[in-house]
Amino acid sequence: MAKKRTVFYLSDRTGITAETLGGSLLTQFDGVEFRQISVPFIQSEEKARRTVAMIDRTAQEEGVRPLLFCTLVDDRVIALLQESQGYLLDLFGTFIDPLEMELGQESTHSAGRAHGIANQRAYQSRIEAMHFALENDDGNSPHNYRQADIILVGVSRCGKTPTCLYLALQFGLRAANYPLIEDDLHAMVLPDRLVPHRKKLYGLSIDPDRLVQIRAERRPNSPYSSRRQCDWEIHEAQRLFEVESIPWIDSTYKSIEEIASTIVDQTGVQRRFF
Amino acid sequence: MAKKRTVFYLSDRTGITAETLGGSLLTQFDGVEFRQISVPFIQSEEKARRTVAMIDRTAQEEGVRPLLFCTLVDDRVIALLQESQGYLLDLFGTFIDPLEMELGQESTHSAGRAHGIANQRAYQSRIEAMHFALENDDGNSPHNYRQADIILVGVSRCGKTPTCLYLALQFGLRAANYPLIEDDLHAMVLPDRLVPHRKKLYGLSIDPDRLVQIRAERRPNSPYSSRRQCDWEIHEAQRLFEVESIPWIDSTYKSIEEIASTIVDQTGVQRRFF
Repeated sequence: MAKKRTVFYLSDRTGITAETLGGSLLTQFDGVEFRQISVPFIQSEEKARRTVAMIDRTAQEEGVRPLLFCTLVDDRVIALLQESQGYLLDLFGTFIDPLEMELGQESTHSAGRAHGIANQRAYQSRIEAMHFALENDDGNSPHNYRQADIILVGVSRCGKTPTCLYLALQFGLRAANYPLIEDDLHAMVLPDRLVPHRKKLYGLSIDPDRLVQIRAERRPNSPYSSRRQCDWEIHEAQRLFEVESIPWIDSTYKSIEEIASTIVDQTGVQRRFF
Repeated sequence: MAKKRTVFYLSDRTGITAETLGGSLLTQFDGVEFRQISVPFIQSEEKARRTVAMIDRTAQEEGVRPLLFCTLVDDRVIALLQESQGYLLDLFGTFIDPLEMELGQESTHSAGRAHGIANQRAYQSRIEAMHFALENDDGNSPHNYRQADIILVGVSRCGKTPTCLYLALQFGLRAANYPLIEDDLHAMVLPDRLVPHRKKLYGLSIDPDRLVQIRAERRPNSPYSSRRQCDWEIHEAQRLFEVESIPWIDSTYKSIEEIASTIVDQTGVQRRFF
């Protein structure tokens, strides 16, 4: 039987940082079944006390102390949680002291700046980029290609849209996309409207089996989702990428985070903010 | 003159975890101008050596050692980077030893699991949720409201769409939205199609000044973006939320991460995965 362990993510704001690093660490331990609970917005001693009560109850019920991944900034709140029966890992505080030493100045101890909108301009560029992705999805408004940082090219349902949205959200990039249709694949040359933007193009491909599966959810038993059609489209699309020297990536076994990061890394496109 | 310091995010995969925690830590130090460079996909000793050369060059040019936020797993790669002239903070390794002790087992030392698709089902639910958000944007296909986990309600351009997409991406939640139009605001009752889904509703509001600004970018000098219209719509929308007891949030000074996390926290809606 698998070991079980409850994990709390404790944060004074969204909890995203705690979940991101804590979740990464957990992936390093196979064979343990982790029950994960997020407690964001711990902004008062009263909420901290209620959280401690929940942790202690869990410890007693399960007979083993829960793991606490913590990105709190308020010293009094941290002190309260350290009194709990959980095993606290201070993801934030651990690095604050060495950073204060290295930078020769004290930290501000201000809560929840990470996912706020402290940098209004950077934040606005993300939102604008998301709207750009939505408005330039699926070959709509090709006159906007000029404003795009990147244009994803690929057959229908190979993952262009989620990747564009993620590029916008994470990097503030203006990502448009162009769906390759049969005519393009028969012609085996870059569609006219893409020619002026050749340097911005990046291809997405996918395993035909996976494409059949995805398309069948949408239009089962159609030519569109047939094995034969998917095989042909993928084969021709990859040939077009090669013929036209468009860099491309197979999205089948990659998450959108990995696809997006790879594109940014390989193209050297300038992200809009950090 | 502000102090300057170069920061490298070093990772064997996407670098998202390093950027997330590292970026959070930097927000605690005012008055330092950080130049941030991400080096993802350090998967070979050869790339590690090239990275060390880049770090050392930076250290020499700037006369101060760069900060290195590191989430590498491969011990040989870490050892190479520790030889560099940068100041390395091992965001990952720091917690691996204590976790091995606490869990009584060794970690797998496997690279880049955090943002992969190790959990295929969880990953699929995110992608499906993103498509759901796109297909159910702006009151399209209200027959799908039954399948929604949450339905955001608010006037045009108050932030519904980006929030829905983020709820999908981060939490795998199926978020639809319904734009309140003038007729709804005049009627001052919940629109018929929303009545069966009352428990899933969450309101978004925004400062009228900000709304004028956002709408003017889209349709300048129109009644739609007039101060008078925005004032009226916001006032009536908030009144409707109160009359119908719909929980709501003001999005003006919050990032989409904060809005989304607040909604999940306050509604107690069950996220689809961790």
